[in-house]
Amino acid sequence: MDHTSTSINNRKPEKTHISNEEIVEKEEDSTAKHDSVEKIFESKEVPPWQKQLTFRAFFVSFVLSVLFTFIVMKLNLTTGIIPSLNVSAGLLGFFFVKVWTKFLDKSGLLKQPFTRQENTVVQTCVVASSGIAFSGGFGSYLFGMSEAIAKKTTEANDSQNIKNPALTWMIGFLFVVSFLGLFSVVPLRKIMIIDFKLTYPSGTATAHLINSFHTPLGAKLAKKQVRTLGKFFSFSFLWGFFQWFFTAGDGCGFVEFPTFGLKAYQNKFYFDFSATYVGVGMICPYLINISLLVGAILSWGIMWPLIENRKGDWYSATLAPSSLHGIQGYRVFIAIAMILGDGLYNFVKVLGRTILGLYQQIRDKNSGSVLPVGSNSSPSNTPTVSYDDERRTRLFLKDKIPTWVAISGYIVLAIISAATLPHIFHPLKWYYIVVMYIFAPTLAFCNAYGCGLTDWSLASTYGKLAIFMIGAWAGASHGGVLAGLAACGVMMNIVSTASDLTQDFKTGYMTLASPRSMFVSQVIGTAIGCIVSPCVFWIFYKAFPDLGNLGSQYPAPYATVYRGIAILGVEGFSSLPNHCLTLCYVFFIAAVVINVLRDIVGPKWASFIPIPMAMAIPFYLGPYFTIDMCVGSLILFIWENVDKAKADAFGPAVASGLICGDGIWTLPSSILALAGVKPPICMKFLSRKENARVDTFLGN
Amino acid sequence: MDHTSTSINNRKPEKTHISNEEIVEKEEDSTAKHDSVEKIFESKEVPPWQKQLTFRAFFVSFVLSVLFTFIVMKLNLTTGIIPSLNVSAGLLGFFFVKVWTKFLDKSGLLKQPFTRQENTVVQTCVVASSGIAFSGGFGSYLFGMSEAIAKKTTEANDSQNIKNPALTWMIGFLFVVSFLGLFSVVPLRKIMIIDFKLTYPSGTATAHLINSFHTPLGAKLAKKQVRTLGKFFSFSFLWGFFQWFFTAGDGCGFVEFPTFGLKAYQNKFYFDFSATYVGVGMICPYLINISLLVGAILSWGIMWPLIENRKGDWYSATLAPSSLHGIQGYRVFIAIAMILGDGLYNFVKVLGRTILGLYQQIRDKNSGSVLPVGSNSSPSNTPTVSYDDERRTRLFLKDKIPTWVAISGYIVLAIISAATLPHIFHPLKWYYIVVMYIFAPTLAFCNAYGCGLTDWSLASTYGKLAIFMIGAWAGASHGGVLAGLAACGVMMNIVSTASDLTQDFKTGYMTLASPRSMFVSQVIGTAIGCIVSPCVFWIFYKAFPDLGNLGSQYPAPYATVYRGIAILGVEGFSSLPNHCLTLCYVFFIAAVVINVLRDIVGPKWASFIPIPMAMAIPFYLGPYFTIDMCVGSLILFIWENVDKAKADAFGPAVASGLICGDGIWTLPSSILALAGVKPPICMKFLSRKENARVDTFLGN
Repeated sequence: MDHTSTSINNRKPEKTHISNEEIVEKEEDSTAKHDSVEKIFESKEVPPWQKQLTFRAFFVSFVLSVLFTFIVMKLNLTTGIIPSLNVSAGLLGFFFVKVWTKFLDKSGLLKQPFTRQENTVVQTCVVASSGIAFSGGFGSYLFGMSEAIAKKTTEANDSQNIKNPALTWMIGFLFVVSFLGLFSVVPLRKIMIIDFKLTYPSGTATAHLINSFHTPLGAKLAKKQVRTLGKFFSFSFLWGFFQWFFTAGDGCGFVEFPTFGLKAYQNKFYFDFSATYVGVGMICPYLINISLLVGAILSWGIMWPLIENRKGDWYSATLAPSSLHGIQGYRVFIAIAMILGDGLYNFVKVLGRTILGLYQQIRDKNSGSVLPVGSNSSPSNTPTVSYDDERRTRLFLKDKIPTWVAISGYIVLAIISAATLPHIFHPLKWYYIVVMYIFAPTLAFCNAYGCGLTDWSLASTYGKLAIFMIGAWAGASHGGVLAGLAACGVMMNIVSTASDLTQDFKTGYMTLASPRSMFVSQVIGTAIGCIVSPCVFWIFYKAFPDLGNLGSQYPAPYATVYRGIAILGVEGFSSLPNHCLTLCYVFFIAAVVINVLRDIVGPKWASFIPIPMAMAIPFYLGPYFTIDMCVGSLILFIWENVDKAKADAFGPAVASGLICGDGIWTLPSSILALAGVKPPICMKFLSRKENARVDTFLGN
Repeated sequence: MDHTSTSINNRKPEKTHISNEEIVEKEEDSTAKHDSVEKIFESKEVPPWQKQLTFRAFFVSFVLSVLFTFIVMKLNLTTGIIPSLNVSAGLLGFFFVKVWTKFLDKSGLLKQPFTRQENTVVQTCVVASSGIAFSGGFGSYLFGMSEAIAKKTTEANDSQNIKNPALTWMIGFLFVVSFLGLFSVVPLRKIMIIDFKLTYPSGTATAHLINSFHTPLGAKLAKKQVRTLGKFFSFSFLWGFFQWFFTAGDGCGFVEFPTFGLKAYQNKFYFDFSATYVGVGMICPYLINISLLVGAILSWGIMWPLIENRKGDWYSATLAPSSLHGIQGYRVFIAIAMILGDGLYNFVKVLGRTILGLYQQIRDKNSGSVLPVGSNSSPSNTPTVSYDDERRTRLFLKDKIPTWVAISGYIVLAIISAATLPHIFHPLKWYYIVVMYIFAPTLAFCNAYGCGLTDWSLASTYGKLAIFMIGAWAGASHGGVLAGLAACGVMMNIVSTASDLTQDFKTGYMTLASPRSMFVSQVIGTAIGCIVSPCVFWIFYKAFPDLGNLGSQYPAPYATVYRGIAILGVEGFSSLPNHCLTLCYVFFIAAVVINVLRDIVGPKWASFIPIPMAMAIPFYLGPYFTIDMCVGSLILFIWENVDKAKADAFGPAVASGLICGDGIWTLPSSILALAGVKPPICMKFLSRKENARVDTFLGN
């Protein structure tokens, strides 16, 4: 078992990527009895890599890609918090292919049985394609370029710094930037997986899941989990459908339910009955939900009301409520300060650990022994290579991908990219791109290595770095904001795919899937993602014209935040409202201090100290989704107290069902919106006084 | 075991009194192993009757009386459907006294342990007092006298036929009429229980429950049940509280939720989120809920829309919507026709069975053998008296209540009653009362006997009979409507208490409670009821000024129905709108035919034929509560399919919790209403068009 038990802060900035540790532990328990997983599968032949790539696998992958792209897109555009959907992808991939093969088996047409390698191929493909929905920046940098977001500020909203979404250039942009990460990581896979024996908690968890599905006992549990997922999927879908009927007009429906009264509602404290975020809350660790709640109370409960009392003094009273020069400015920039403080601290920390780790690896290599990083405290303990490791390593190294293919692929793509991107984004000069592509592989390696160590991808932090650097280089008068945002896209795509795909290689290593079939699956998955993601975003963009407006169904908070960062980088701090900069410094330092504190007190006490990154999210958005997530936590907490085993086994399935059902409802809901079908009823909430006025009005 | 297994249509007209047969069966299963219940309790001494009457028992009884009076009153005033609350009374009685004794036990002050006899005393007292809330007619004849109900019709709404509620006369009236039933039944208790060995399913079920609580295993289950009840009690209470916040104004809140759309809402098809009626639906047999649904669809889905199309032709288009000359008239009188048809058929049937049963009893007595009525098909089988029966009979006969006490009590009370009632209701002459009191004991006996046989009290049918007879005797010009309604009260109180209290004697017989302590408990309970019930009604009456208005929170449907019957009896059919009489005939005959059909096809198939009485209730009120009840049925149905044993054990506890919690919420809610505290928010439902208008209105 190469899953070393280090304490993992399993979160990524923004994309709170939660590995399902409980499941890993469960699986470990059940496999511990057998000592070796591969002994169980010994009798099963591993098909050659070409046979692992079946038509059915890619058909199912495509269907799931569309499903997960919708879900991720919805999450992008509502809050930007995206939990790990690996478990749902694994479960549903298994379910669909199983149904497919069972059907063929009954009709006697089945030529090839369903193997765990094939399952891994489906998983990899879906992760690759739905990853694009996140790294494509539809909720952050890409949408941040649009006029809808730009018009919120008076700075840099000239045509030079604006690029409205269009299907063609988005697809082209993604195709040009998304494959680079893939090629940059291929040559490193052996080093990461075999030599360094990195943990990759999410990848390991997924591999355990897939392995368990293909043992007889595991298949039974998987069936039950799928059934649970299906039940909550239907419930969540129908609940979304039911809610729809009551949303005729603004401020109507369950999403505007003043659960704690109208006063609390004005400060965005209400439960909005979102099945998605209840599910997200069930998947996210308690600490994240608590951090969100602490942040929400601190900001919307205390700080904003206090600052609003200074209206006319600290900021002009005549501003529109959405102006970044008013109260909204405090919200956005203080959140940015906190996110940057947390990001910087962790960047330094992970980079430090990376360098230290690398140094030890090289030292150990020089002294002749290959040691897992996790166990470097006892260098005298030379490990005997287990049966599992031996078999896995042999199969992993069997199908090679030549390094020259990877390197030449990267160079060709980089040239194409540098040649085409300036035509899409005029302020982004070709030499900016070349410089980025020179540094990118190093950063991609850093991120893949750090992620393997901590399960924590810093993709968006590298992206923000790119915004500042390229934005400042270009300058405000030369479209620096747009250049910065585009550079963020270039950087994020490489760095994010690099870590995601190394995770997948780990999964493949543990399920004996061939690296070659994995690579093909990743290429296909990325291609699917490059087409599906912009299309799905396009549906949202066309169906909901108020996309990006605060208070609407899809406020896309990070689009504003990213553009705000770009403006800061280009224009400096001059544009901030009074005292805002001071507060920003305070929160930036607070974020660093809290992180230092969390590291000093050790993992036991750290679980009582909130995470600054999570605290910052509700600063801008308001507490409503936090309350949903805390409800999810509460449900899980009660469930765990009543029946821990059942909660552990079925909790993720319930949560996935809730997320998927509500996420998929957005498909018919946007089709209805596009077709101009409007809901018939408005569920409105009026104060008693207003109600009396309305009653007399309607009575006439 | 003296619980003969006859198939029981456990329902009473209006007061759908459901015996918890499942529980009885469960208890029988568990006690069957021991053969004899009393063998288990052999070691436990039965305290003398004075010791069974403890202060704590009456204190708990009083608290529970108030609780149940609130619940029954709420049910009276919303739909008039009252499920059996015996189980909740038993559970809660056990719980409170147990807590009390446990507390004293710990502090070393406990002088007397808690016995099942004491539990029976609590149970009896609560049943007696909350029975008054039903038989006091606060939702039927008594409130039917008021101006609020009278002004709905143009007939007989002169001052002669109106008597508005007032605390003083209501308490006086109840004290004068409520004790007669008690005295009338005392001399007959030996005949009913020992000689006739009547079943009394509800009484038997309660006795089994109490017995089971006081065995060690039973106490454990009871504790769990109480905890479940408590959980759902809290949930239901908090849900009621939460709902309250959104009801600022008419047409606001969850009770007006157009769950199935606005069109369906206009025809009263909607789910109104009432925890009470979901609970009621869980307790009522499936057949009753299905019957209600069939009736609802037939009337509000088909008939009323068709008749409304004839507006201006069949009835004047200029009438107020609540006028009994318009569409409302069809609703009320067709419902009355169906209720009367069902009532008449069952009156004849139960009377026939009573006479037949009596004849057989007397014949058997003459031939020397005492046989249970249920087993009269095999007269050769002379039963050996079991240990249980022997012990129970001995204790039941030990403490006698002299017959002369009962008879003289009855006569004295009758004289007082005849002397005072004409002062309360001027049109009710003293000789009407005397005539009624001459016939009443016979009718009380009939009802107690029929109830013992079928668990079906015909109290309200006897009451309606009295309305017709006395109303016609007095005549319209001499306040016949008021006289009829008052006579209904006199009759119902005797007949209803007679059957309720014989039930209690059966419970006492099976738990070895002394008849003397039972009698005292009944007297005290009745006295409590005579004071508490009018006070609770008074709170409702003062707190909700639109009491009795259709469409309000408390429409008190039976008040209108009873007054309608009185008007029919006094004025004849001339006041009905066009074709209404024809339809009434059709539904009267249909009710009889359906009942005949149900008896012909036998119990197996009868469970697929709806009950006319239940069908008639939504005719007037609309389908909304029916949908609540069907939701309750559905929940129970799914639960039974998932885990039958658990559903059987905890279903009644869940249902009782839901009913009690919501019922008790009415106490603070009416206090808030009395104090003038109004809810802050209105949850309003507008069509898209209206919403657009309101938005522009509020925008200005």
